[in-house]
Amino acid sequence: MTKERITVVEIAHAAGVSKSTVSLVLQGSSLVNEVTRAKVSAVIRELGYVYNRGAANLRQSNSKSKIIGIVVNDLTNSFFAELAVGVDDVVQSAGYVQFLSNTGESVDRQREVIASMREHGISGLIVSPARGTEPADLKPLVASGIPVVVVVRNIQGAKVSSLMSDNHAGASAAVEHLVALGHRRIAFLGGFPDTAVFAERLVGYQTALKSADIAFDASLVISSAPSRAGGVDAIDRAVRLGDRPTAALCFNDAVAFGVCDGLRANRLEPGADFGVIGFDDVIEAKTAVPALTTVSVDPQGMGRRAAQLLLKQINSGNADPEALVGSVRLVVRESSGPARRDVEKRTA
Amino acid sequence: MTKERITVVEIAHAAGVSKSTVSLVLQGSSLVNEVTRAKVSAVIRELGYVYNRGAANLRQSNSKSKIIGIVVNDLTNSFFAELAVGVDDVVQSAGYVQFLSNTGESVDRQREVIASMREHGISGLIVSPARGTEPADLKPLVASGIPVVVVVRNIQGAKVSSLMSDNHAGASAAVEHLVALGHRRIAFLGGFPDTAVFAERLVGYQTALKSADIAFDASLVISSAPSRAGGVDAIDRAVRLGDRPTAALCFNDAVAFGVCDGLRANRLEPGADFGVIGFDDVIEAKTAVPALTTVSVDPQGMGRRAAQLLLKQINSGNADPEALVGSVRLVVRESSGPARRDVEKRTA
Repeated sequence: MTKERITVVEIAHAAGVSKSTVSLVLQGSSLVNEVTRAKVSAVIRELGYVYNRGAANLRQSNSKSKIIGIVVNDLTNSFFAELAVGVDDVVQSAGYVQFLSNTGESVDRQREVIASMREHGISGLIVSPARGTEPADLKPLVASGIPVVVVVRNIQGAKVSSLMSDNHAGASAAVEHLVALGHRRIAFLGGFPDTAVFAERLVGYQTALKSADIAFDASLVISSAPSRAGGVDAIDRAVRLGDRPTAALCFNDAVAFGVCDGLRANRLEPGADFGVIGFDDVIEAKTAVPALTTVSVDPQGMGRRAAQLLLKQINSGNADPEALVGSVRLVVRESSGPARRDVEKRTA
Repeated sequence: MTKERITVVEIAHAAGVSKSTVSLVLQGSSLVNEVTRAKVSAVIRELGYVYNRGAANLRQSNSKSKIIGIVVNDLTNSFFAELAVGVDDVVQSAGYVQFLSNTGESVDRQREVIASMREHGISGLIVSPARGTEPADLKPLVASGIPVVVVVRNIQGAKVSSLMSDNHAGASAAVEHLVALGHRRIAFLGGFPDTAVFAERLVGYQTALKSADIAFDASLVISSAPSRAGGVDAIDRAVRLGDRPTAALCFNDAVAFGVCDGLRANRLEPGADFGVIGFDDVIEAKTAVPALTTVSVDPQGMGRRAAQLLLKQINSGNADPEALVGSVRLVVRESSGPARRDVEKRTA
């Protein structure tokens, strides 16, 4: 570990690529394909590039390793853990260290952690804002010229880049799928109604119902915490309805897993007796039994894309914000099942 | 937000407690009971103590907000997300901001993030070390006099404080419970065999088998990644054994959930057809169907305790490390079920 700072030339030589390719990787550029990026990143790690830079920094104590901040609103939801892993994947290759803080939906705590990250000289911030966040909450960062990318939930009026999912299209596709399976009583379960994401998904749900000539029934919209426990709670209320639903679009995968748990507690088998669709496509969606039909947002992919957008802003020194909407796709697995005639009869 | 720095006297007045109680809360002392701590913390947040301190720091730009670093080896395992939430709960009350980094089991990445945290002047570090971590990896921190608390996995020979779980006692209690239910073919599923935690839990499993006069059968120990997918994989191999097991102690809850998924994929109902016990007691263990019998480590509680130990080290300026072992308890829910005679017959 007494080796001096590794140069870009050495990395390029060891990886068998050009100097400019190494530079692009270090900048997190999306121009480099995944295979090359992985190869160069492996060489960078092998040669201890970042570690030795840390040692070099100790000698010239003014320069410090570069940090990307990431602030999430609910670390206990695996969506955010996966998002953070995706961000880390990209920023690590670009020579950054990622520091994550959790706000647990507290706007006050969010102000504190953002202030602390600013003091510690973050190069940029990725934030999934707490409920009730206002543009003013990001102002100190924006005023300092620190690039910000807002993900998952938008902040209306904040002059920063954003990466959202196409919530409307995703929710519509999910409901169309349930309608095609023969369902007519379709619930919308879980989520906090005061968030933009909830509103967008609900409108998508309503649009698809309308296209299928199914009247909207407000009693089928049952909100709850966007968590597994919230899902158990929502389905418990749904099965107690007089004219009960035969399927549900859930606010997210966490809610959908809770709905599956709650169905079983009510002696109904998800997939067979009741159609369940989630939203996110967390890792667990694939291995769950039944495997979860869900609108894939691909949290790790979203994290990688957010990181690329942020690095682009950092490297260009360009303050013009970009608003991106990530496409989503319905992944049909087992939990949406067909609408069974006996269930329809029971509930008609 | 133009208010000057809030004083301890003002906080004490608003919370109706003494000045010294406020100081104890700010130091994260365990001498203050939970109710008082919560009340004082609420007042601190309400008065914007930390936030204004941030503003004050901007004027005197040398002092920065105080940071606690937390480094985990697998953020996608909800155990670590819950642990981090527990740490945050305590350090937040003490006026610290928590920065988290994920190593994804990479010792190289761990060196980088720890170096970066040191450069950025963390007050202390809580680390669940990546596989293969050596005492030398923590040396730069220890040499700088920065307190470190190692959690979950010990690092032999590192002269730092540690907080482990009583893995031996927990695994023994779980196996004793399965034996009492009539199981004789009990598997140990999941986990990486090269970790100290695996070794401790395996020895606990063996001790309980011995007490019950059940011969140890190495074919019933099936290791895998300590994840949900790893659990699916492990049970798939277990059910293919000639003399197959009727129950299993799983390395952790993530593995246990995967085992439940994999059992259903093999048309076996966890709890009814096969006894399953996890280790950790993550939030989901309670709401899962069947609810998971597990050895409760209480991840949030462990996080809080680790934070209190770290704050004590920071505040005392005392470098003498402490080694704590947290007690665990078996929480019996539905997944361990009774050993069914027909299952025993089928496998005998």
